[in-house]
Amino acid sequence: MKKIINHTDDILQEMLRGFCYENDELVYKLDSAEVIVTKSEHDDRVSLISGGGSGHEPAHAGFVGDGMLTAAVCGEIFTSPTPDQILEAITSVKNDKGVLLIVKNYSGDIMNFEMAQELAADEGIDVEMVVVNDDIAVEDSTYTTGRRGVAGTVFVHKILGYYAAQGMDLKSLKVMGDKLVKDIKTIGVALDAATVPAVGKKGFELNDQEIEFGVGIHGEPGYHRTAMKPSHELAQEMVQKLKKEFTWSPGDTYGILVNGLGATPYMEQYIFMNDVRSLLEQEGLNIEFKKSGNLMTSLDMEGISLTMIRFNNREWISALKSDVNTAAWR
Amino acid sequence: MKKIINHTDDILQEMLRGFCYENDELVYKLDSAEVIVTKSEHDDRVSLISGGGSGHEPAHAGFVGDGMLTAAVCGEIFTSPTPDQILEAITSVKNDKGVLLIVKNYSGDIMNFEMAQELAADEGIDVEMVVVNDDIAVEDSTYTTGRRGVAGTVFVHKILGYYAAQGMDLKSLKVMGDKLVKDIKTIGVALDAATVPAVGKKGFELNDQEIEFGVGIHGEPGYHRTAMKPSHELAQEMVQKLKKEFTWSPGDTYGILVNGLGATPYMEQYIFMNDVRSLLEQEGLNIEFKKSGNLMTSLDMEGISLTMIRFNNREWISALKSDVNTAAWR
Repeated sequence: MKKIINHTDDILQEMLRGFCYENDELVYKLDSAEVIVTKSEHDDRVSLISGGGSGHEPAHAGFVGDGMLTAAVCGEIFTSPTPDQILEAITSVKNDKGVLLIVKNYSGDIMNFEMAQELAADEGIDVEMVVVNDDIAVEDSTYTTGRRGVAGTVFVHKILGYYAAQGMDLKSLKVMGDKLVKDIKTIGVALDAATVPAVGKKGFELNDQEIEFGVGIHGEPGYHRTAMKPSHELAQEMVQKLKKEFTWSPGDTYGILVNGLGATPYMEQYIFMNDVRSLLEQEGLNIEFKKSGNLMTSLDMEGISLTMIRFNNREWISALKSDVNTAAWR
Repeated sequence: MKKIINHTDDILQEMLRGFCYENDELVYKLDSAEVIVTKSEHDDRVSLISGGGSGHEPAHAGFVGDGMLTAAVCGEIFTSPTPDQILEAITSVKNDKGVLLIVKNYSGDIMNFEMAQELAADEGIDVEMVVVNDDIAVEDSTYTTGRRGVAGTVFVHKILGYYAAQGMDLKSLKVMGDKLVKDIKTIGVALDAATVPAVGKKGFELNDQEIEFGVGIHGEPGYHRTAMKPSHELAQEMVQKLKKEFTWSPGDTYGILVNGLGATPYMEQYIFMNDVRSLLEQEGLNIEFKKSGNLMTSLDMEGISLTMIRFNNREWISALKSDVNTAAWR
């Protein structure tokens, strides 16, 4: 394992220090906890908090800033933040508008965010929670009951961030978030596993010719291990899988996110994007938003995911295209 | 080799198609050549063109847009674009203000961009050229006489893009560019080599414990192969090397770019950024701009580079911080 790190115990602290140094005009870290908070004015709106285990950079701290998240709570690598940490995040950004938690569907995260929500309620803070479960690969998984939350979470940050900035109230944001989550679906493929630094070896083994569809962002098993394929065949498998879930018709309007899982060069993301484009054109879909990049990674995993969002509400397109001021959404 | 590609002959075309599809509000591709052109109005200013071999994504196409490059010429992987291609770029963006070429110092690029400059002159187009040679690792190299041009080129795009937008004329931009290049220096370290798709194997071999300082962005040899070290020791070697070149004093004002070489996760970039921060604080430098990201990559190379810019001119700070509208500079 060659990684640009120091002691494995110090990864989280050092990473947050580097991140906050770079982005000191946008964010700051709470002294008391691994919580990254926006420097932009946010008293006029509901606060949005997300987070979870680290190892998915730039998620979630990279999405803190005007128009997206108010704060991100950063757990140790692939480990949920504690209820105390989450409560610190909540109390640090609370105002009279309330707080919305956006949580990826992992049992540890759900438990801890819910506990923090209860503790906050005890302090009289109004907190709601939206659970993202966009990964259509499998039902139930190593750390999940139901479906996992993955790259589609970034769309939830962006769209709810837009509505919060527009002044939408907490209850309405919760309703909107629950609706939104139903229209966002993701499927991924791993070419090679990630290495958790403290473990020192890959989370699973794929040989030189193998890939695995549906692997989770913590290396959870996928649904199909097979021989490596050209990009257009990867795209075909993934678009077919999404089609089965969405049951779309020609003329329907969607958006897409091609997400690199950590070690996938942009060149490959652009090529894959082109293959997805071609397939969705054949399907007759109307694609009104598209984006690529490393937004929800899994350490140094090689691979890619494809997220699609059904624009049941055309305002979501404007929401995705609206300007924000964050480190990672451009 | 597992890469998300189709036929190796089609990489450049498919990648550009994917890139332009994603960024169709910002850029378009010339029908006749592998040239990416901004959609923003640019008749009021000198046109800036950069380019070179592909494999360095998002460079250079990702920096095309309002406030940075007017066009990027994209050669095959690690291969200079031809004079004809470059001439097409020049004629596609020419106006009465002239054209400035920003070229990384590789013999093939210099030859072809110079030839295109002469062809354009024959057509009565006023063209100047700035050569970037920021890589302090070695003098002369596999494809270079003198020093190589690497990640610091992105600072040149950004700062000259700012001045061009301010209305600076061609001669002054050339003078400013030549001055700027002297104040930008970069050093890199490779943890693992890149694989050129058409070759199918790594460009050089490093074992599980080895790294190499000063490797070029086409896998050109560096200056020192050694055992893997913690991030803070990598940073120390690189900062020392830069210090020797700049001979700075406490209180001097600089900017930094931590650049991932293709397969380096953001987590590691943030940790390295933190180590650089700490060392430069010890040096007493005043760091007024900092940025990380994958801006000038080498396919799937694992590794990182550190670029520093000496702010002899404080306007360069505002230039780097100014808003632009491109795919890759946020």
